[in-house]
Amino acid sequence: MSIEPVLTRIDNNLDASLERLFELIRIKSISADPAYKDDCRQAAVWCAEQLTEIGISASVRKTVGHPMVVGHYDGAGPDAPHILFYGHYDVQPVDPLELWEADPFDPRVTDVDGEKRIIARGACDDKGQLMTFVEAARAWVSETGGLPVNVTILFEGEEESSSPSMIPFLNQSGEELKKDVAFVCDTSMWDRRTPAITTMLRGMLSEEMVIRAASHDLHSGMYGNAARNPIHLLAKIIADMRDETGRITLPGFYDGVPDLSPEQKAQWDTLGFDEKAFFDSIGLSIPAGEQGYPVLQQIWSRPTMEVNGIVGGYTGAGAKTVIPAQASAKFTFRLVGDQDPEAIRAAFRAFVNERLPADCSAEFIDHGGERAVTQPGDSHWVQTAKAALSAEWNKDAVLIAIGGSIPIVTQFKKHLGMDSVLVGFGLDDDRIHSPNEKYNLTSFHGGIRSWARILGALAG
Amino acid sequence: MSIEPVLTRIDNNLDASLERLFELIRIKSISADPAYKDDCRQAAVWCAEQLTEIGISASVRKTVGHPMVVGHYDGAGPDAPHILFYGHYDVQPVDPLELWEADPFDPRVTDVDGEKRIIARGACDDKGQLMTFVEAARAWVSETGGLPVNVTILFEGEEESSSPSMIPFLNQSGEELKKDVAFVCDTSMWDRRTPAITTMLRGMLSEEMVIRAASHDLHSGMYGNAARNPIHLLAKIIADMRDETGRITLPGFYDGVPDLSPEQKAQWDTLGFDEKAFFDSIGLSIPAGEQGYPVLQQIWSRPTMEVNGIVGGYTGAGAKTVIPAQASAKFTFRLVGDQDPEAIRAAFRAFVNERLPADCSAEFIDHGGERAVTQPGDSHWVQTAKAALSAEWNKDAVLIAIGGSIPIVTQFKKHLGMDSVLVGFGLDDDRIHSPNEKYNLTSFHGGIRSWARILGALAG
Repeated sequence: MSIEPVLTRIDNNLDASLERLFELIRIKSISADPAYKDDCRQAAVWCAEQLTEIGISASVRKTVGHPMVVGHYDGAGPDAPHILFYGHYDVQPVDPLELWEADPFDPRVTDVDGEKRIIARGACDDKGQLMTFVEAARAWVSETGGLPVNVTILFEGEEESSSPSMIPFLNQSGEELKKDVAFVCDTSMWDRRTPAITTMLRGMLSEEMVIRAASHDLHSGMYGNAARNPIHLLAKIIADMRDETGRITLPGFYDGVPDLSPEQKAQWDTLGFDEKAFFDSIGLSIPAGEQGYPVLQQIWSRPTMEVNGIVGGYTGAGAKTVIPAQASAKFTFRLVGDQDPEAIRAAFRAFVNERLPADCSAEFIDHGGERAVTQPGDSHWVQTAKAALSAEWNKDAVLIAIGGSIPIVTQFKKHLGMDSVLVGFGLDDDRIHSPNEKYNLTSFHGGIRSWARILGALAG
Repeated sequence: MSIEPVLTRIDNNLDASLERLFELIRIKSISADPAYKDDCRQAAVWCAEQLTEIGISASVRKTVGHPMVVGHYDGAGPDAPHILFYGHYDVQPVDPLELWEADPFDPRVTDVDGEKRIIARGACDDKGQLMTFVEAARAWVSETGGLPVNVTILFEGEEESSSPSMIPFLNQSGEELKKDVAFVCDTSMWDRRTPAITTMLRGMLSEEMVIRAASHDLHSGMYGNAARNPIHLLAKIIADMRDETGRITLPGFYDGVPDLSPEQKAQWDTLGFDEKAFFDSIGLSIPAGEQGYPVLQQIWSRPTMEVNGIVGGYTGAGAKTVIPAQASAKFTFRLVGDQDPEAIRAAFRAFVNERLPADCSAEFIDHGGERAVTQPGDSHWVQTAKAALSAEWNKDAVLIAIGGSIPIVTQFKKHLGMDSVLVGFGLDDDRIHSPNEKYNLTSFHGGIRSWARILGALAG
């Protein structure tokens, strides 16, 4: 059947779709703050009701944290594909509130430089994105009486607070959730006109370290020079971890890091990534990573180590003449290809311990680790979605990477053996996690139309 | 006249002396923290009242910071010597508060291994020390109706926060304060049984630095590798400042550092400094300073650089994937001989700036700087005090150095042309500037008796 009547229905009902998104946004489902526990539950209930209304029979599932929403539609019959769609209904905290131009939970469409923007917390991440799929399904059901493929829904309420309930939930409900493939809507387009599928995600190893020297804080006049200063040890270790060319010096760190294929390089070259604009937007101008790699590779396909926090000694106003008893730092390693987080954790700990004098010690705190994820760009699922996106946006969809992690993708692979296709309609300037988060109306509208096309295309 | 009745009076009134010290300790005069401004003023008023009560007519003098207390006694007549006595009523901050075994401002005497210890912030530094002189003067006045020499008092309230008001005050009130010699009570004994006069002090240069990179905090997944991390820059700079042998690498840093004379070396050798005990007391065992120098020289006669505090990025619980926009550290350099603080400050700033990429910047905050001080050990004043101390402790007083700075000694010399004699009763394990600071009751009691003897001896 033709997709056109479904698309026309979407166009004609955009205001109603928008009003439903606004209803969801008005629920203050901030997962990180226990004060919003009831709001999170309310958002889950709202989602389940919406799904059930369009024939995706849904329920709210308890966890030790915020609930999951799971829904099923199998009206397409046993021979049709069965996909899992994932999104999250929780949002980031809104502080600093004073930087918002309006109430973050009172959504509105504002005209900025000729662009219509939905401004609110969650407008993009991930309520706006999640609703593009729900509204596409609604249009299909309203127009044709059903969906063209079987669909299972998983909406999470803890994505913005490290998903503590997800692994237990997957272990418990895996059979119910394992489908042919997962579609995840939590990523961005390449630019305002170019749709994208994200096929590479860096993994992450997170490790905290406390270096201990003297048994108590010392007066730096009385002990300075003779007594070991743990800040100096920490600084030396951090400095030693990177060589003059920006390479990480941990033994074995680059084991499993693949060379980028000539095809991948060529495809990324066609993207026309603007290094100057990238640096301008963050007030910098000089690439800091490994020499010899373009910036896009530094952030997408090369591993790195970043110190995310450091503290030791006196950090208040003025000066204090102290040699602290301890100093600590938080590290994250971004991983690619087959880099093994646990092997790197062991190498890191050995690297540190080798550099400590015998009268000092280090305590290590494991904050988790996940391998990188690469999705095969030539799979049936990716190619089908790519063609549908290209048709909708009238421009070839591109396959891109992101430097960050999306843990759910790793977890679907690890716990359910299921690949994910990452399609999303965010833009780089959406200010997710920041004040005045927005989602362009073209993202919302084009997103709904895109999913309608993808659903149709998956039916074959 | 005999000193014995004065000493007996001191012994008989020790409890009352202790209660007065406790009154002073209970006033939370933390000079570095503006929240305690009123407490500092209250401590100054309390001191002035105590002095006036014993005939040393005192007043609280305004400064732009915390006030000075100045008192005068000239009842010994124009032919008697006139000394200046200096101490400070302000104390260090108490953090980390959780490491204190009791409220730092609720002083108590505790029995530890048969020793009676006064435990509180300021028990030693410098409230306990300052009160040894006040109580000695009180005993003289109570017993004999007056003091045997003329005395001017200067109590400062900003010693623990770099004394910003001292130089303007000395410039303004120098004539009133310039006396035959200054006695400063802010130092230690050689050991529990051996009194000491300190004749060498390291100088200090204090500098804070903030390194700025991106215009705002960045997501370390999206930007990690390509965007400069200011924590890495800071770590590299700190690491670069010391070579493998423990020497500081700042160009020109060792200009003006003298070799220790053979005589000085020989005198220090007779002290029988116990390196193992020194390290045991702080839970360490390996000298961290310049190779080839004994520990006593590392802390007394060799210069150093110490980072006293460092902070950047996320330092709360758990992990946060951030590349911070800035990171900062506080440095102190300990100086000896003729090292010039301002030349070293300039070398430090140049050293940092040379190591910054063009898109990053450093802000420097000057927290002061003073040259090292060496006092002639054979002066009348030193020899008189040495004899009195030897009599009180029944053991020859020794001439020693300390690795810390007492900037007031430099300032008295520079601004008033006045030498200082440094007599104090602290012990190495007093934990000044640390949690659970203490002052042995023998220090307090023996200190009061010592000053009573010194006052008598100065009268000739």
